[in-house]
Order: sequence, then structure tokens, then C-alpha cells
Amino acid sequence: MAATYKAPLRDIRFVLHDVLDVSRISRLPGYEDATPDIFDAVLEEAAKMCENELFPLNRPGDEEGCTFENGVVRTPRGFKEAYATFIEGGWTALATHPEYGGQGLPKTLNFVVEEMICSANLAFGMYPGLSAGAYNAIAAHASDELKARYLPKLSDGTWSGTMCLTEPHCGTDLGLIRTKAVPADDGSFRITGTKIFISAGEHDLTENIIHLVLAKLPDAPEGTRGISLFLVPKFIPDANGAPAERNGVACGAIEHKMGIKASATCVLNFDDAVGWMVGKPHRGLQAMFTMMNVARLAVGMQGLGIGEAAYQGAVAYALDRTSGRALTGTKYPDRSADPIVVHPDVRRNLMTMRALNEGARALSYWIGTEIDVSHHHPDPAVRQEADDLVQLMTPIIKAFLTDLGFDNANRGVQIYGGHGYIREHGMEQYVRDARITQLYEGTNGIQAMDLVGRKLSAGMGRLLRRFFHPADAYIAAKKSDPALKELIGPFAKAFQRLQQATAGLAQKAMANPDEAGAAASPYLRMFALVALAFMWAKMAEVATVKIAAGEDVDFHQRKLKTARFFMEQVLPEHLAAFAVAMAGAKTVMAMADDEF
Amino acid sequence: MAATYKAPLRDIRFVLHDVLDVSRISRLPGYEDATPDIFDAVLEEAAKMCENELFPLNRPGDEEGCTFENGVVRTPRGFKEAYATFIEGGWTALATHPEYGGQGLPKTLNFVVEEMICSANLAFGMYPGLSAGAYNAIAAHASDELKARYLPKLSDGTWSGTMCLTEPHCGTDLGLIRTKAVPADDGSFRITGTKIFISAGEHDLTENIIHLVLAKLPDAPEGTRGISLFLVPKFIPDANGAPAERNGVACGAIEHKMGIKASATCVLNFDDAVGWMVGKPHRGLQAMFTMMNVARLAVGMQGLGIGEAAYQGAVAYALDRTSGRALTGTKYPDRSADPIVVHPDVRRNLMTMRALNEGARALSYWIGTEIDVSHHHPDPAVRQEADDLVQLMTPIIKAFLTDLGFDNANRGVQIYGGHGYIREHGMEQYVRDARITQLYEGTNGIQAMDLVGRKLSAGMGRLLRRFFHPADAYIAAKKSDPALKELIGPFAKAFQRLQQATAGLAQKAMANPDEAGAAASPYLRMFALVALAFMWAKMAEVATVKIAAGEDVDFHQRKLKTARFFMEQVLPEHLAAFAVAMAGAKTVMAMADDEF
Repeated sequence: MAATYKAPLRDIRFVLHDVLDVSRISRLPGYEDATPDIFDAVLEEAAKMCENELFPLNRPGDEEGCTFENGVVRTPRGFKEAYATFIEGGWTALATHPEYGGQGLPKTLNFVVEEMICSANLAFGMYPGLSAGAYNAIAAHASDELKARYLPKLSDGTWSGTMCLTEPHCGTDLGLIRTKAVPADDGSFRITGTKIFISAGEHDLTENIIHLVLAKLPDAPEGTRGISLFLVPKFIPDANGAPAERNGVACGAIEHKMGIKASATCVLNFDDAVGWMVGKPHRGLQAMFTMMNVARLAVGMQGLGIGEAAYQGAVAYALDRTSGRALTGTKYPDRSADPIVVHPDVRRNLMTMRALNEGARALSYWIGTEIDVSHHHPDPAVRQEADDLVQLMTPIIKAFLTDLGFDNANRGVQIYGGHGYIREHGMEQYVRDARITQLYEGTNGIQAMDLVGRKLSAGMGRLLRRFFHPADAYIAAKKSDPALKELIGPFAKAFQRLQQATAGLAQKAMANPDEAGAAASPYLRMFALVALAFMWAKMAEVATVKIAAGEDVDFHQRKLKTARFFMEQVLPEHLAAFAVAMAGAKTVMAMADDEF
Repeated sequence: MAATYKAPLRDIRFVLHDVLDVSRISRLPGYEDATPDIFDAVLEEAAKMCENELFPLNRPGDEEGCTFENGVVRTPRGFKEAYATFIEGGWTALATHPEYGGQGLPKTLNFVVEEMICSANLAFGMYPGLSAGAYNAIAAHASDELKARYLPKLSDGTWSGTMCLTEPHCGTDLGLIRTKAVPADDGSFRITGTKIFISAGEHDLTENIIHLVLAKLPDAPEGTRGISLFLVPKFIPDANGAPAERNGVACGAIEHKMGIKASATCVLNFDDAVGWMVGKPHRGLQAMFTMMNVARLAVGMQGLGIGEAAYQGAVAYALDRTSGRALTGTKYPDRSADPIVVHPDVRRNLMTMRALNEGARALSYWIGTEIDVSHHHPDPAVRQEADDLVQLMTPIIKAFLTDLGFDNANRGVQIYGGHGYIREHGMEQYVRDARITQLYEGTNGIQAMDLVGRKLSAGMGRLLRRFFHPADAYIAAKKSDPALKELIGPFAKAFQRLQQATAGLAQKAMANPDEAGAAASPYLRMFALVALAFMWAKMAEVATVKIAAGEDVDFHQRKLKTARFFMEQVLPEHLAAFAVAMAGAKTVMAMADDEF
């Protein structure tokens, strides 16, 4: 039985309209056209594109992979045609600025479309995903001339983009990069060096590829404060903006990877390549972080996308495959055995996948709307508040949603049993594809360090309050509501432990920074579970109101059932994370390096 | 940086000699020659074989995989030669009976060698592993004639074996199998049907392959009580016992899998194949369970093997790869950055891997020694007690150690960062290879059901007491020992919760069997963590004595450090498992089947 995917539009609409009220986005200046109806219409089109164009290429793309010959990278059969359809449909231009030919729709909408694309075909999604990152960095930091030349092409998707950070000897520790940029007389630079792990670094989908490259000027100070950002096109545009002279950048190899095999991961050799500086000298890392933060959230959506696809495959199989009889007696006497969905352990896996996916969807879309608020709200104080929350939640969404994607993919395989291990059924591909999301854009351990090392202390805890205050207020307002008590109770207790862990961590980390490092991962995990509990409480509240009003009662009953499962069966994981985060660094650090 | 493997002989000796005192095995009748010195000598030879012959074939075997052409299966380059060396070294005959040419050494020793083989090359280990299962089933259930004809060849490895259970429409639910066995005039049978997922079903390593096949006689009752077991050789031996006439069994295809690509997973078509019955009519499942129980423990050792190999790879990388500086200040001023082993989150992963591996090693070797006691002790009461414990712990070892293998492989990849995702570094292969161990020989969900549904209630809780009594006695004896208090405390509390969960489960499951099913997986997980805590308490006790005696102090201090880490940082996971197991089936089962 092959994998299956239908965009979960009903669930998406529930979150967007009923839980988050995206109509408040259309009240923001510049988003007047993004009415809830437009949201729905765009999402229906996106669903068709993902289900009909991208999903059918997912398995064959994995089997065929990309090929590399004489410096040329070819994507798997069908990818070129699908990409042409994709840009024709305007999907690369969805949230880009109208000044550069974009549709200027909210980022929230982009978030949702990203989830669908990644459910359907994660490897395909890498190509437009990287372009979006490049677009954002150029839009935020480049000169008007560079913007005018490159943004329209990145927006309409005829050109694509990359982020060139990693070198063979350094990934996270970018202060060590060796790629050099030498100024030329005409204001441009000559870039020389080797970059690795460059997604979409070379391929056959677009007529040009725009690399954003971190490099060091000759007079650069040591470390991360000496890095500049350069725009290096594969083909240098001529006076009319058409791709002309081949630049000094070449693909040296593509990596042989565990998964996302249809995404070309390239070694790029820059040899006196012509480039233009983006932003200020030595400030390249700040500019790159514009891309990275957006990219981290996008990677989180990749996790959710896989998590949803794995769930759908697992449900289809659990309803179809028969084995044994229900423990409480035969449920399907007409069949030679009951479908495995009757077995409690199978159901535990299905419900866990479902509760995690739906909770993560609410959380990530919420942060999506806050991005729009942070860019478009007329009040700078409101913009700042929204941006604070986005910053706080970025490492949590990146790490937790990618862990979720991988874990759900594995739950899906487990439900398939031995058949899950066979490539043709498509479930094991989700495991292999999801695995990269926990590693790139900063491993999930790095995300945890970002959370405890940077985000918690930022502005004397200001970022943290952007989550703690609304959670606190919500609990205070709803804890006596008889319809919600059973759900608010566990959420409130978990939130209290999170506050306790936060206070404990802040205190211990001052005396010894290893305390923050040792607690980081379990602390992030705990924070994410509490955030999901918050989302489930809110979703249950909405569902209760809808049920009372007689609206789509079955659908909203399912939300309540899943909310209760989350609180009883998923949230308790925070107890272990709490205990471990509070236990301290001593046993973690006790071994000398050479004792391992 | 490529993966690396050295057999952890010092750790193995610690468990065998100092913790488990294997000299008591050599005091069992029949094992007089298996002195501790012999153990060590065999293990040193096994280490050489695994490190030098099997490990170098692991990566290339994965890349090349098995090939299938015109009914012929070819193993990857080097496998034939390695297999020849393997059987020449007598490794297939290690624990087989001297009557059939075996060395008759204890099963415990076999367990340890299995761990090493699976660290070095899991896919290779499948071939002799399946043979051992076939050997055991024939030795336990077949006629003397079949034994005399087949066991010497399986023992010396010139022939190999398989287990043919699964059919396309049924795996766990064997009552549904359709393969038929029709009696012939000469006392043999004619077998017809299709079996899938047959490991080592066809290959080029041995001159004959002996299939053990579940099939139904014409008069068979419905369900699992109508299944018989047949021995079906690929080539029917002639009067001299040499492989002669080709039998009616053919490989129809090999599966394209996520991992263990060098292990041929075959579709086998039986078409009027000649077979002989093993055991009694309609009692095939019982006979097959002889193989299955041994196989389940062996699969557990596969998990530990991968867990150990992943740990070693991760340590080597963490000491070599540099990135950033220690949070508490530069540790390696001579290097441009500190090795990542200084970072607390990396260390958390390394310590977790280490604590799980060493705890699981102690637990599984303990059960290995109990197998020997259950077979060789002169007192039937002692044999029964030992067998009870083995039965109780079999699903726990299968499920927990394979989860451990997969999780540790993923921790290894995480430490490698993006490099872990690249095939040439070898870490992602561990993830793919380990994944099957959670699925075959009964998925880990099935193991959990076996534990709560069969093992807990067996003999009115008699099996359970074989673990609870010694744990209880140990806590009572040691809890006041000042040197052990800090370790016994957490173990005792966790054990108390396990007792509480057991009592709660027994009570609730009587009213509603879904309660047992819903709690099964978290209950098994909790049980395993408590069992590991028991092992770590014992290991810490031994280490404390050795340190006091001035013996190999550094080594034993590392044991103490890891024991403390286990209690503070790993064991708390049981809190979540406890909460979830106690929460009940209601929310797990709330959704109707068609609501998913």
C-alpha cells in the first residue's frame, strides 16, 4: 500500500479562522486584499498543486536522485516540468513584494503552503525554499541596484537562490571560514573558496542561480565579526538583466545522502568569482541571519509537513491492514481479521501523531501571523512585541517540529510493520527525508543553546514574557471554566514547572554556563510541550463553543478528543524533561574528555 | 571521518567476570571447559574477526547491496570470502552441540559474540544468525534422522537456514497463513505457497539453504492451532548427505529496503517442494517459538551492537571535530576551536549513549547466563526459575535494546551534524540498519503486548517475581550502604513506581483488556529503565569495591560517573512512562475508527 496525501484543509481552516482569526491579518496595512476568502482560495489551489504535481514525484525522485556529470547536475525526471508549473502558478511570488512582481500576500499564508509542499515533496520544496531565503536577505540588506536586478527574477522563480555558509572544516562556527573576497576596481569583489552542503547549489530547474556567500575581506578582523556577505550569480547578468557570462563558480560534486535525494547538495568551488557585497563590510553574519531565521522556521514547517504526511499514510494503512482481533472482541466479523486500527498500541501511535501535528500546526501558524504583525502593524510597540515572540519561538519551532517530523515518520513506519521498511511503500523515505531537518540550519542542539543562551536572557527576559504573559493570562481567565477545567489543569501545572525550570536555570547558569548548556535540550523540549498544551487548550475552547452552537459537531468533537489525549498521554513527557533539566550539569560534565 | 569499531573487551570482561561472575557457568555440568580464561580467549579472537574481517565490509556492503538476476541472489563483494573465513574460524559452531560437531560453549558467549558481529556488520550477521535459529528449532523438535542429516552442516556453516513465517497478507497474525503441506507416500510432504520477508532466503554464501516453513496440512484446524512446521532444503541431500536434486523452492524477488542492504530479504515461492515435518502436526507454532524466542533476544543484541558502534563513531568525531569554544572558556588554546566534546549538549548525547549501552550490556548478558542456567543446571527448580526470568525479559530486551540501537544511531548522527547525513561517514547507515530491528521478530508494540498480556499473568505472576524478588532483596540489602545510597535511592523509587504500575495495570486490565493494550508500550519502557537501574546499581557496587582495592581505579571511576549520570539523567524518563501508563485507555480509544 503506497503512501497517500491530501492537504488537511479543514484542519488548516480551523486553525487559521477559528483559533487564530486571520481576519486580523487582513486588517493590517498592506494586507487589505488578504481576506479570509482569499486565504481559502489560495490554499485550495496550493492543495491541488501539492497533491497532483509534487506528491506523485516524491517516491520516484527519491529512487532516481540527482545526478552529477561533468559539472552538470540533473534533477530527477519530472522535476523540471513540475518546477515550470510551480512558477507558472505564481507560487514563488506568493509573499514577495509587489514592487518586484510579487503578490505581496501574508507570510502566514506562505507558512501554510510550505507545510503542504513539504508534506508532498520535501526535496522539491528545497529549491523554492532556498530562493525565498535569498530573496529575503537581498530585500533586507542589498543596494537598490542589486534589488532591482535580482529580486524580480527570484520572485518569479526563473532564477533560484542559495545560502553558502558551510566550509569543510566549519559549519556552526562560522568565524573560522576561509573563503576570501578581494575588492575589484569597479566596486565588485572576487570570491575564492570552497563551500559544502549547498542545497540547490547547482541544478537544471532555472536559467540562473544566485549564491549568497559568506566570505572575508582582506582586512577582516578575526572571527564572526569579520565576515561579509556577497551576491555571486552563476551567470553574470548583461546590461538587459539576462544571464550572460559564466561566473567563476562551479559544482565540484554532489553529496550522497541518507535522504532528500532529489535535492542537490553541492560542493561549490568559487574561483575568482565576481560578486557584489550585500549589506556592510564585516556585517555579513547579521545579514545572513535574516535568511537563517526565516529558514529555521521554514525547516520547522518541513518537520510538520512530514509529520502530517506520515500520519495520513499510517491511518490509511491501519484501516486497511488486518491482523488479529480487537482485545475486547471481534469488531469486523466480515473480515478474516480486524484492521489494526482496533489495537490500542497502534491507536496510541496514531493519536500521538495527530495530537503533535495539530498542536504544532496551531503553534507555527500563530508564529506565522506574528511575523506579519511584526512587519505590518502600524504601532511600533506592537511590532516589537510580535518580533520578540517570533524570536523566542524560532528555535523551539525549528527543533521541536523537526523532531516531531522524524518521530512521526518513525511512528508511521512502526504501524506499517515490516512493510514500512520496504522502499516502495514510501514510509521509510519520510524517516530519511525528515532526518536532515534536525541537522541543518543549526542542529537541534544549537537551537536549544540559542534558546537558553540568547533568547531567555535577551532584554532581561523580555522575549520570554511574550509567551509567559499570555499563557498566564489565559490560565487565569479560563481555569474556572467548567467545560475547560480538565484541560487547563494539566496545562497550568506544566506551565508552572516551566516557570520553575526557567527560574532555576537562570540562577544556576549565572554561576556556571555549563548549567545552561546541559539543561538546554530538555528545557526546549519542555517549553515546546507547554506551548502545545497552550494551543490545545485554545483549540478545545473554540471546539467547545462550536459544539454548543451546533456547528460541525463531529469535527469539533474530534478536536476535544485529541485535546484530552494530548493532555493525558503526550504532555506527561515534560515531567521527564523537567527532572532532567533540573538535575544539573554535574553528571553531564563529570567525565574528562579523554575518558570517553 | 569514517566510522570506527573496536570491540569493547574491557567493558565486556567487567560485566562477565566482575558483575555476573561467569565462573558459575563453568561450574554447570557440560560447561566445565568454559572457564573464564576460555571466555576471554574466544572473545579476543572474535574481536579480531569482527574488527578485521566484518567491519571493513559494512559500508561497501551497504552501497552495493544484494543483487537478484534470473533467480540468483548475489551478496556484495567480499561477503563470500568473509563467510568462508567466518566458518573456518568455527564461529557458527561456537554454541552448537559436540554431537553435531559443535564446540558446545555457553550461550552467554554466543550473546557477546553476537553483539560484536552486529556492531561490525549487522547485515552479515543475519546469515549465521538465521542458521542458528534453524539449528535450534531442528535440535529441539526434529526427528533424530533429520537432526543427523542437517545439524552438522548448519553447525559447520556449509549450509545455512531460514525461518519462513510471513506471507503477503499476514505477519504477526500467523493463523491466517495459506501455505499448504500435502502428505506424500514416503512420509515426506509437498509444500506450496508464497513466503515474504525471508532473510537469507537465497544467497551465494553456502552450498545449501535449509528453510523452516510454517504451512497447513489439508486437515488443519483454523487459526494458529492448525499450523505445522516443515524442513525444506533448497537442494535435497542424496544418500551421502551431499546436496543433490534442486527442490521446488525459488526466490521470486528481493526487497528494496531502507537498510541492511547486504542482507537478502527474499520472496520465496514454494511449488510442490519436498519437505519433512519438524515436531508434531498442527504444533508448528510452538516449535517455531523455540526459534523466535532465541531470535528475539538475538535481535536485542543487534540493537546493542549498533548502539555500541554508533557510540564509538560519535566519540571519535566529538574528539576530532572542532567548533566554538567551551562555555566556561577555551579548553584547547592550541587549536583554532575546541573539539565539540567540550559542549554540554554533545556530552549529554555521548553520556546517554554510553549509559544505555553499558546498562543494556549488563542486562542482556545477565539474561544470557540465565539461559545457560536454564539448560544446564542440575536442579530442575533452578532451571525453571532461570527460564522464567528469560521468558519475562525476552520482550523487554528485544524492544528496549532495539529502540536503544536506533536512538543511539540517531544520537551519533546528531553529533556528526550535517556530516552524519552523508553516506560515506557511515553514521546514517546505523540508523537505517537499526530501524529493522524494531520491526522484525514481532514489532516492539507486539513485544509490549507479549509482556503485559502473557508474561505478567503467566503462573499467577510467577515470571514477574523472578525480577521483582531479586530487585527487592538488593534494595533492602544495599539501601543503607553509604557508598551506594545516592544510586540506590533513585533506583528504589523507580522500582516502587514500577510495582505500583504493575498492580494498577493488573487490576484495570481485568475489567477491560484495552487497558493493558494501551499501557503496554510505556509499561515496557518503564520496566526496562528500572532493570537498567538495577544493573547500574550492581555495576556501581562492583566499581566501588574495586576502587577501594586500588584495582584499575580510572576504569572503575568511569563506571561510577556513568552510573550517576544514568540515575540523574536517563532514569527520569520513567516518570513520563509511568504517568502515561497510569493514565488509562480512555483517551487512547476515544476516537471511532472512521474518525481518523
